[in-house]
Amino acid sequence: MPYIKVEEHLPGITGLLEYRRDTAEPIRDLTQFILRGPNSLTEGERELIATVVSHNNNCTFCSSAHTAAADALLGESNTAACVKSDIESAPVSEKMKALLTIAKQVQQSGKAVTTESVDRAKKAGATDVEIHDTVLIAALFCLYNRYVDGLATVTPTDPNFYKGLADRLVNHGYTRLKSYDHLKAK
Amino acid sequence: MPYIKVEEHLPGITGLLEYRRDTAEPIRDLTQFILRGPNSLTEGERELIATVVSHNNNCTFCSSAHTAAADALLGESNTAACVKSDIESAPVSEKMKALLTIAKQVQQSGKAVTTESVDRAKKAGATDVEIHDTVLIAALFCLYNRYVDGLATVTPTDPNFYKGLADRLVNHGYTRLKSYDHLKAK
Repeated sequence: MPYIKVEEHLPGITGLLEYRRDTAEPIRDLTQFILRGPNSLTEGERELIATVVSHNNNCTFCSSAHTAAADALLGESNTAACVKSDIESAPVSEKMKALLTIAKQVQQSGKAVTTESVDRAKKAGATDVEIHDTVLIAALFCLYNRYVDGLATVTPTDPNFYKGLADRLVNHGYTRLKSYDHLKAK
Repeated sequence: MPYIKVEEHLPGITGLLEYRRDTAEPIRDLTQFILRGPNSLTEGERELIATVVSHNNNCTFCSSAHTAAADALLGESNTAACVKSDIESAPVSEKMKALLTIAKQVQQSGKAVTTESVDRAKKAGATDVEIHDTVLIAALFCLYNRYVDGLATVTPTDPNFYKGLADRLVNHGYTRLKSYDHLKAK
């Protein structure tokens, strides 16, 4: 049971963003821009960063939601599963392996990011902006994961819930919808 | 040396917020609202939450900056020093001890927040919104601390730098100023 009174039919982050819409607005704006705005990293690649961080923070709600979003954007479910279990053997570019490694280090601590991992990313062609955005996306999901689990929000167990949520994230992004009825927990 | 090319005279978070003003805007808006907006927690109490989290994330820049901001708002430097070393013996209310404990748990992980610590806060009079805001402020500083250290930004060692920064945070809040000349690193 959540630690605060959120709307019962809105699990995970969805209830929190409705609970306090004034704080939700800039959180939504930041997420929409960094995950869906113009970027040399694809939307799928950015969702993989969100997935790796959420997975390593053991946040089941966020990990399930962003795995489903990455799967929908990539058109397959193998890549997201691989990056969660072992980045080095995942079917992604050397640049993405380096960036996902940086994201995983950020998940541990800002100070865990090494010169070696940044050098590897640059050598593989990553730009300063891509490195910046990787660190910021990883840091943002350290916020989300703590927000969602720190208030003990409800985590649906039905995979169809996350497919529905992914459909919304892929087709409408992170801006606020007027109705959340399609996300009702089963 | 920072991992990406930020303006040399802007240390810590200040250079990052200027590096990518489009992502900075919602980060600033969220921070201004949650740390300076209307709230039953005082600005000093909210800065103590930021301080405890930054201190436990070993982020010297953020810990120094928000300690200085809390000191300026509280008019003394004993309380911030105490909450960093031992929340239970700090000269703050039982409610603040409970909320700072929740913040410290959020710093570790969302799942580290316990029913016991939330019950203690409620028993001491904390409202749902205060518990929500404590978790969100703590989560936000987990973002900031990782952003600042994950890109290896410069950490000034001169205490006067943080006094100047605190003066800006107390008198102007977290919105963007046209000139950052007064924050030039020594």
